[in-house]
Amino acid sequence: MCGIIGIYNHPEAATLAYLGLYAQQHRGQESAGIATGNGDKMKIHLSMGQVPDIFSQGVLNTLKGIHAIGHVRYSTQGESHIRNCQPFMVNFSSGSMAVVHNGNIVNALSLRKKFEDSGAIFQSNIDTEVVMHLLARSKQQTIRERITDALSALDGAFSLLFLTKDTMIAARDSSGFRPLVLGKKNGAHIVASETSAFDLIGAEFVREIEPGEVVFFSGDQIESFRFADNNHKKNHCIFEYVYFARPDSHVFNRDVYEIRKGFGHQLAKESATRADLVVPVPDSGVPAAIGYSHESKIPFEMGLVRNHYVGRTFIEPEQNIRHFGVKVKLNPVRKTFEGKKVILVDDSIVRGTTSKKIVKMIRDAGAKEIHLKISSPPTKWPCFYGMDTPSRRELISAKKTVEETRLHIECDSLQYLSVESLYWFDKINNKEWFCDACFTGKYPVGRAEVEKKIRFETGEAIKPL
Amino acid sequence: MCGIIGIYNHPEAATLAYLGLYAQQHRGQESAGIATGNGDKMKIHLSMGQVPDIFSQGVLNTLKGIHAIGHVRYSTQGESHIRNCQPFMVNFSSGSMAVVHNGNIVNALSLRKKFEDSGAIFQSNIDTEVVMHLLARSKQQTIRERITDALSALDGAFSLLFLTKDTMIAARDSSGFRPLVLGKKNGAHIVASETSAFDLIGAEFVREIEPGEVVFFSGDQIESFRFADNNHKKNHCIFEYVYFARPDSHVFNRDVYEIRKGFGHQLAKESATRADLVVPVPDSGVPAAIGYSHESKIPFEMGLVRNHYVGRTFIEPEQNIRHFGVKVKLNPVRKTFEGKKVILVDDSIVRGTTSKKIVKMIRDAGAKEIHLKISSPPTKWPCFYGMDTPSRRELISAKKTVEETRLHIECDSLQYLSVESLYWFDKINNKEWFCDACFTGKYPVGRAEVEKKIRFETGEAIKPL
Amino acid sequence: MCGIIGIYNHPEAATLAYLGLYAQQHRGQESAGIATGNGDKMKIHLSMGQVPDIFSQGVLNTLKGIHAIGHVRYSTQGESHIRNCQPFMVNFSSGSMAVVHNGNIVNALSLRKKFEDSGAIFQSNIDTEVVMHLLARSKQQTIRERITDALSALDGAFSLLFLTKDTMIAARDSSGFRPLVLGKKNGAHIVASETSAFDLIGAEFVREIEPGEVVFFSGDQIESFRFADNNHKKNHCIFEYVYFARPDSHVFNRDVYEIRKGFGHQLAKESATRADLVVPVPDSGVPAAIGYSHESKIPFEMGLVRNHYVGRTFIEPEQNIRHFGVKVKLNPVRKTFEGKKVILVDDSIVRGTTSKKIVKMIRDAGAKEIHLKISSPPTKWPCFYGMDTPSRRELISAKKTVEETRLHIECDSLQYLSVESLYWFDKINNKEWFCDACFTGKYPVGRAEVEKKIRFETGEAIKPL
Amino acid sequence: MCGIIGIYNHPEAATLAYLGLYAQQHRGQESAGIATGNGDKMKIHLSMGQVPDIFSQGVLNTLKGIHAIGHVRYSTQGESHIRNCQPFMVNFSSGSMAVVHNGNIVNALSLRKKFEDSGAIFQSNIDTEVVMHLLARSKQQTIRERITDALSALDGAFSLLFLTKDTMIAARDSSGFRPLVLGKKNGAHIVASETSAFDLIGAEFVREIEPGEVVFFSGDQIESFRFADNNHKKNHCIFEYVYFARPDSHVFNRDVYEIRKGFGHQLAKESATRADLVVPVPDSGVPAAIGYSHESKIPFEMGLVRNHYVGRTFIEPEQNIRHFGVKVKLNPVRKTFEGKKVILVDDSIVRGTTSKKIVKMIRDAGAKEIHLKISSPPTKWPCFYGMDTPSRRELISAKKTVEETRLHIECDSLQYLSVESLYWFDKINNKEWFCDACFTGKYPVGRAEVEKKIRFETGEAIKPL
Repeated sequence: MCGIIGIYNHPEAATLAYLGLYAQQHRGQESAGIATGNGDKMKIHLSMGQVPDIFSQGVLNTLKGIHAIGHVRYSTQGESHIRNCQPFMVNFSSGSMAVVHNGNIVNALSLRKKFEDSGAIFQSNIDTEVVMHLLARSKQQTIRERITDALSALDGAFSLLFLTKDTMIAARDSSGFRPLVLGKKNGAHIVASETSAFDLIGAEFVREIEPGEVVFFSGDQIESFRFADNNHKKNHCIFEYVYFARPDSHVFNRDVYEIRKGFGHQLAKESATRADLVVPVPDSGVPAAIGYSHESKIPFEMGLVRNHYVGRTFIEPEQNIRHFGVKVKLNPVRKTFEGKKVILVDDSIVRGTTSKKIVKMIRDAGAKEIHLKISSPPTKWPCFYGMDTPSRRELISAKKTVEETRLHIECDSLQYLSVESLYWFDKINNKEWFCDACFTGKYPVGRAEVEKKIRFETGEAIKPL
Repeated sequence: MCGIIGIYNHPEAATLAYLGLYAQQHRGQESAGIATGNGDKMKIHLSMGQVPDIFSQGVLNTLKGIHAIGHVRYSTQGESHIRNCQPFMVNFSSGSMAVVHNGNIVNALSLRKKFEDSGAIFQSNIDTEVVMHLLARSKQQTIRERITDALSALDGAFSLLFLTKDTMIAARDSSGFRPLVLGKKNGAHIVASETSAFDLIGAEFVREIEPGEVVFFSGDQIESFRFADNNHKKNHCIFEYVYFARPDSHVFNRDVYEIRKGFGHQLAKESATRADLVVPVPDSGVPAAIGYSHESKIPFEMGLVRNHYVGRTFIEPEQNIRHFGVKVKLNPVRKTFEGKKVILVDDSIVRGTTSKKIVKMIRDAGAKEIHLKISSPPTKWPCFYGMDTPSRRELISAKKTVEETRLHIECDSLQYLSVESLYWFDKINNKEWFCDACFTGKYPVGRAEVEKKIRFETGEAIKPL
Repeated sequence: MCGIIGIYNHPEAATLAYLGLYAQQHRGQESAGIATGNGDKMKIHLSMGQVPDIFSQGVLNTLKGIHAIGHVRYSTQGESHIRNCQPFMVNFSSGSMAVVHNGNIVNALSLRKKFEDSGAIFQSNIDTEVVMHLLARSKQQTIRERITDALSALDGAFSLLFLTKDTMIAARDSSGFRPLVLGKKNGAHIVASETSAFDLIGAEFVREIEPGEVVFFSGDQIESFRFADNNHKKNHCIFEYVYFARPDSHVFNRDVYEIRKGFGHQLAKESATRADLVVPVPDSGVPAAIGYSHESKIPFEMGLVRNHYVGRTFIEPEQNIRHFGVKVKLNPVRKTFEGKKVILVDDSIVRGTTSKKIVKMIRDAGAKEIHLKISSPPTKWPCFYGMDTPSRRELISAKKTVEETRLHIECDSLQYLSVESLYWFDKINNKEWFCDACFTGKYPVGRAEVEKKIRFETGEAIKPL
Repeated sequence: MCGIIGIYNHPEAATLAYLGLYAQQHRGQESAGIATGNGDKMKIHLSMGQVPDIFSQGVLNTLKGIHAIGHVRYSTQGESHIRNCQPFMVNFSSGSMAVVHNGNIVNALSLRKKFEDSGAIFQSNIDTEVVMHLLARSKQQTIRERITDALSALDGAFSLLFLTKDTMIAARDSSGFRPLVLGKKNGAHIVASETSAFDLIGAEFVREIEPGEVVFFSGDQIESFRFADNNHKKNHCIFEYVYFARPDSHVFNRDVYEIRKGFGHQLAKESATRADLVVPVPDSGVPAAIGYSHESKIPFEMGLVRNHYVGRTFIEPEQNIRHFGVKVKLNPVRKTFEGKKVILVDDSIVRGTTSKKIVKMIRDAGAKEIHLKISSPPTKWPCFYGMDTPSRRELISAKKTVEETRLHIECDSLQYLSVESLYWFDKINNKEWFCDACFTGKYPVGRAEVEKKIRFETGEAIKPL
């Protein structure tokens, strides 16, 4: 996962981009960067690390310009290395261009192989470099045609922002996997992954960039066109709702907090568990736990306290301390749990190791029963559209039944949300607007490439659509 | 405010001290330090900044020893300067000694003046240096008598830990203003400000260090004695319950989370406000908001989202953005507030500026009515016992009535907890166990010095006991 | 200018590369980097700054491998930016490859333009990227043929080291502009710009890599072949002798210290100046001053003391101090100069500003006469083969006669070495083995491109060969 | 050893102090600090490390004031720790005061013990703290009397600068062990250890601060008085001439470069060695080697090249490289030594390990004979007056005869300067103006304390005066 921001036509473009990245820091803590254009020249600064550590006032001062794009990176693919940081900036026949990317190109490796065979060199491991090669190699004359040409060759998920010294271009894949929203602030145009960036910047939400749409910002003009026809089935990533987006963001035209709370309501409706209290795993489990509490009338308690000073490197004592790794982040309010039957709400289970530790920690704190409620279906399949999930072999739900998982985690009961209830917010026939391949194995795009990868790993076939 | 930790007799003393500081980072983010003793020599490392930035594995490796004391500092008094960081380490006739201090010595300046007149030199602005001078100048022979001598001369709040190369000493003022707890972990003894430190270290809570008690750790022995008689009225700081301590800590023999939730219950009992939802100012307002919701049956919502990546220095754009300062930390979930009557719960109001910004931000998000509920009485008086409150002149409640404050903050109603309800957890006659001078002006200790300072500032008298 | 190092087949390859860069730090202080191969994978680390600041033990530990190449960069061309640091590492059809480069490709811009027109993208401003494109686009099958193909397309100066996970390749342009030497250490092969790198590593000098030669290190084999025929006139850079190389290095099969001392002898032979003492501008003027003193019998004195702690950023007081900029580096031994006639020896004059300040400083120290002796001819033409000289417009000798220069510098006399005397070490007919275009304007290679650049700047023609 | 700087009455006091420290960096690279006064308040900044790394423009901006004192520290005594950095700043009955110290107080430990017994606490291991206790405990009324009182109690070497918010005081022990000079720059007064600081600052040398003199800078006044009578025998440190001071400094009213060159002349006069060349160990051996060459007519050659980029931490390969430690700093010009008889000139031999490595390195470079000439007598006794010499047990000349030392170092001959020739610059009867205890064991001051320490270590007596 990554987060992107674009600022077009604002005297403090770099500072606004910095704020936009800051508000989207949850989408990537590995590296960050900003490129700017002042109509004449481009500047760039990028580094491993988090936004506040990378950008000082001094650095922002060097990023002169009225346009800016920025990126925070979560290492989906490509090693942790400065060469893989974005914005990715190149020179080619049309001049200098920087690009930021959120998503994952399914056919990137094939394209890369093809280009290498015809004499291209690659300096990074990121998909974004493939996009720039497509652009540079296009035989089209205008940048508009080149963009159409390049984007049409891509399979997979991409929300992209391109910047030249005087132009900004936003584009989104025709499935609309990743969010991309358009806002404005006085005379400036803002593009971001999430609306929470607009809130901090003080910008106003205008609309989503449409799947298959390209928006050109040039001079005083905004121009929109499609590089793909309008008939494409939407495949918004349902996991943005489950976990990834900030709860205060407005994503895919809905409010994330409300959606998540609804997951909790659904879980409670499908459950008959009697308990004394509902406790979320903070912070991601909070909205669903509130929904569960509202629906079930079982009191909500903040029984796990989150440490706000979690440093990047943490020194563990040699002599082992029980549940140490989890305790650095979470600590139980002992009294709340003593002798109680607890409903514990989390958003998902990936490998199961953290859940197991939290359950143990709560049991040590005195809980009598622990009923784990997951506000999404079992995560059984890896994502190839930009979410950083481990391989199928590491996903506990790919290998174990719900009961086997419960035994592993050592909770008293384990309940997942059903796939049907996941779509509570839009019951009629609209499932096709979302990609839920991580739960169902029904990969909507680039199926041949995806099947190849899955087969290579586990010998399995993916599910029919 | 500050947080302290002591580890006696553990092979990884420095690492445990580091973890103990880490768990108490909320008690001070300005500087941190650890001193160790290995029976033969002492080592020390201290720096401005936060715990994870100050202590690397390499630094911890240099802090050899089986005993350690540590400190996190919040700049109560004394400038931000390396000379004011703790542990404070000196040599005197009895050898080397390091000390850490949580609290505030009311008569420190008088003592300091006296010592300077008799030829002493001071290298810092912190009270702790006065304590060491008292110890060094004592005419007593044994360290036990010297400690008694020194502590008896102090007026005010102090939870202290002393360390020599082979001995650790814990002491607490006879009022018991600041918390100080004793724990154990295998053969090691642990002393900390809060039990949350024990949780991360994997230590077991044993008991509070008593007000007026000194505990000596030496060789295999723990020895306890009193430097003050047992009849002293306790004056635990009620603000530890209101705001300062972690909700998962056990302080003054009670659970902070439960106490805070009770404040919310009391607020709701004293209120007749009709509303659609109860929203806390995170994180400090969360337990009281939950209590309020439970009592009032008005649904609890996490309508304000806290940014977890707040950096130490934050760059603001020149062009002002509405409520910018608050938005860096908090952002409203717009939909939750739209057209709603909101109960907003916070722990206290100091200057009123932040509350005003939050209220505006929520109103901009569409709230119809905003009723601000404060889970403590109006803060009218500065603290002289170790809490970092501004001067009386800056406290909004010292100058304005509740209604004037409401007008300033621009909320639809404003309700504080009554002083009586503050003591819901112990209704009968136990008020005398707590210091609530910040609410009542009834300063229990060092009244002459306190009166002098208040008079100097505002010309007012303090309240009779 | 830059310095390069290659280590083939040594268990501590990265550490030896680090030492090799350290010994060649004088060839570039702007950035440094090392890439390694362990037969299976490649690693890289690069950063702006100086060698000791960039490579810690921790960083070297991550650079696993038995082969390594390294680079120190002096910003000849290309902006100061991490994207321009070397090693330059890419992936292409033949796999991963890193490259380091000392020199300057005269036709780089033309090649780059051609590649961009055919769809290539560029991520840096350095020539080295062009070399990699040539390699990747070659239609040849074997890496040997590809290298021949690529290098044949280049005009100008290049000493190159390529590294794959298991192969190292050294190559030098057919003019042999920049030095490149081969050494060995136990079973390992070492390639470096200067032999001083061998001295620190403890390696033994074997021979120069020949102009037009490619040396392949692969498995246990070293294989040498030529990519250009043997008849090419050599064009070793005479400025390596004048200023750039370390005096303790063996360059172009001669000892730099002896050559420089010879320059001083020649200067003295061509001079009749009577004086009391000979003083060098340290450190570059020392060997020539010693030679001058030996020849003239005028006593040598170290009358200018060099500050060894010159930091990268130096804070100047607002209130101007006489000769401040020079004094940070040099200070006169006042007594040595008082009332004396001084022979001051420096290696070259570029813009004349530093010389002017030094002369003033010595005169202020009491010198009666100052005779400036330059151990090279007037520098009149910019270098296009890798030396970092300013444009012709900034070279004082391009604009002024010797007498005008003397008047500007305000010395009592000014003498340059004649071009003939420059070749004292090889008088008969061997001038064609060196490039002295910076003195004569006789550019030996890429004359069309060079002429275009000079004409663009000043409207002048270059000199016929 | 340490270096100190004082600036009185200059608008850029902190920047000038920074420059003064920079010029004196050779006197201490372990830590540096500056304290300033603006007539009203004092500011301080200190840190471990070198001057350019510690002081940025931002830091200097915080050091507001028109007066400043600064210090660079070489760890003579006291551990490497921030608490031992100077300026040492305290508060006492007279207000705030900072102090910097170059020298060593022989009776510091006795005084310290006495103070501790009467209830004082110490926070550092440095002598300077004792000075401040003396000042604070003086019963005198005026600061002038207090200073006289305090300084009179000290035995040993001290050049001191005190600073209050509006006053600066310079003082020097009555022996004048360490240098201390007075300069001026426009209306400002400058005090420094060495005149080289004046050169960089652009200040003018006025005179030495006299041994036993105190100079008071206050308001527009400079006032001088003596705290000790004028009859005291001077004991200037001869080692400042041999090694420590910069060659371009004017110390004890003589020019260091000339004195050192004279040592070389004397060595040559006392020698009959036939040789091909004279080579210094740079940089400290250069002036004496020049003198030797002038006297003997044997040509001077810069046969050892010094690496200018020696970093603070240097990573050594595991596989040992011959003479590695020395090679990081020095490298021979091989051709210069091949088959030659070499006179190698160095300033002194302490443990003999470095000399041994250099001799081997030169022999490996092909020298036929190596004759080591030392421009001082054998260093046999440790210094107790501020020079950082090792204990007597580690001094090679304390244990071995000249011939035994030669055998250890493996040179062909070894010659030291005689004690008589050391005083070539002042032949008649003036030996009593210098302390040469390191060569003669004739300790002039604090003999009882010194004898105690020497006896404790080796059982030996010191020499009679």
